[in-house]
Amino acid sequence: MDKRLQSFISEKAPLIDAEMNRLIDTEKAPSSLKESMLYSVNAGGKRIRPLLVLAVLADFGKDSADALKVACAAELIHTYSLIHDDLPSMDDDDFRRGKPTNHRVFGEATAVLAGDALQTRAFGILASLEHAKPDQVIRLVALLADASGANGMVGGQVLDMEGETAALSLKELEEVHLHKTGALLSFCIEAGAILSDAEDAELDQLRKYAKNIGLAFQIKDDILDVTSTTEQLGKTANSDAASDKSTYPSLLGLEGAQQQLEKYHLDATASLDFLKKENSMLKLFADYIVQRDV
Amino acid sequence: MDKRLQSFISEKAPLIDAEMNRLIDTEKAPSSLKESMLYSVNAGGKRIRPLLVLAVLADFGKDSADALKVACAAELIHTYSLIHDDLPSMDDDDFRRGKPTNHRVFGEATAVLAGDALQTRAFGILASLEHAKPDQVIRLVALLADASGANGMVGGQVLDMEGETAALSLKELEEVHLHKTGALLSFCIEAGAILSDAEDAELDQLRKYAKNIGLAFQIKDDILDVTSTTEQLGKTANSDAASDKSTYPSLLGLEGAQQQLEKYHLDATASLDFLKKENSMLKLFADYIVQRDV
Repeated sequence: MDKRLQSFISEKAPLIDAEMNRLIDTEKAPSSLKESMLYSVNAGGKRIRPLLVLAVLADFGKDSADALKVACAAELIHTYSLIHDDLPSMDDDDFRRGKPTNHRVFGEATAVLAGDALQTRAFGILASLEHAKPDQVIRLVALLADASGANGMVGGQVLDMEGETAALSLKELEEVHLHKTGALLSFCIEAGAILSDAEDAELDQLRKYAKNIGLAFQIKDDILDVTSTTEQLGKTANSDAASDKSTYPSLLGLEGAQQQLEKYHLDATASLDFLKKENSMLKLFADYIVQRDV
Repeated sequence: MDKRLQSFISEKAPLIDAEMNRLIDTEKAPSSLKESMLYSVNAGGKRIRPLLVLAVLADFGKDSADALKVACAAELIHTYSLIHDDLPSMDDDDFRRGKPTNHRVFGEATAVLAGDALQTRAFGILASLEHAKPDQVIRLVALLADASGANGMVGGQVLDMEGETAALSLKELEEVHLHKTGALLSFCIEAGAILSDAEDAELDQLRKYAKNIGLAFQIKDDILDVTSTTEQLGKTANSDAASDKSTYPSLLGLEGAQQQLEKYHLDATASLDFLKKENSMLKLFADYIVQRDV
């Protein structure tokens, strides 16, 4: 990983972790529920979504006390979605990132409710921003709802489930990922841009960037699933092939998937030209997403 | 039921139903997900929460195009909570209001996701209000998050689950209900007051009203569970006694529970004195909650 990105992550990730814990811990809630919410919040993860929010602000040379909160809100939505995706009725996963999944530790009922409450908390956090203009806050709430609901992440999860029993075309596979993971990543980029008072033309470019890194992220995940061991991934490797699921490698072959990944990467970085920086933080993130081992 | 309340409900309930359907139907979403969301939205219900929002506006002599949307947002939160409460890992109910529960029709995975997406939609709806002032919108989002999350409805569900395996005191039972059902009812009253530009002192009185009708609503439910047949209720009667659950009748006896109900009713209606109306819509609602048969 690039040294500048590494130092950015080393600086920001602990702030994100501390703030997420604070935002849950200060809620009045039954202790079992809070424990379950915090378990998944602290179960690791690369924090890519919140880091992207902060990366946008860094590239615009802006700073905002609200940015950290918005970053955390996005990560709480991601966390809730993982808890629900892992449930026995969905992916039925016992482990995530090498740790027992939420329902394995707290039981299914509490896992459902912890996910529910994490989603609610995310919206509550947006409503508690202290520096953003009211219009910006409302825009963020609307964007997060759109990105995470039936027309975004949750809809993508449904498409993904339905895709498990059908052979998908490349276009259909893209649709799944644009919704399931892309929408929330796009929220992160767009939210960062809103908090940076970006202009509309800049926002358009950043949306393209977000779309392309979202697809790059997924194709890289698919490639890693084929090329890594279970130990390297912290989750079962080759699970896609085992389940006959449509993936980029299954549709394009490993080499074709790699080429497609490079195309998304090129398109993503080209959208950053307007920043007029050779190594913007967003560029370094795009590089990392393509080059990562896990 | 009082004729004035009846005519209010006959006028407003169809508007609520139509608007909820419109608000879901206009979302771009996989058709199976939308179908599952709409199934539960249209599975009946007394629409008490959205009607209360509109009743507050009626008592203040106000009208707001946003009120119907806020009313629907509250009902979507209620609907999502019912879908998740009915899941096999929670209450494991096969029927609600005489119809098969969501997961019995669409499967557990889709039921979880439909609930998730209904919650998201509620917040999205608040962010789309067109007439409320931005500060009011943000206040509504903050209030709904507080009322429905870990410190509100979801927390109450956890307390309720934990209470099933322990004998509760009267105070603990009240805590369960203040969270599980009271918080969202309070949101409805407070939201109506905000949209009516109520003064702080009026808001205080309305919060007392909301708290008391919330508890009255629950105690009446407990009493009906003992005194009604399964057919009358549209759900299994005497289920509380069968499960050894702490209820108002089990703690106070049926007569004691009835007295407590009357006390809540009196306290609720006393909080409405400031309206200086003998038969405000909120008063008629309090009467109805106490006198209803189902």
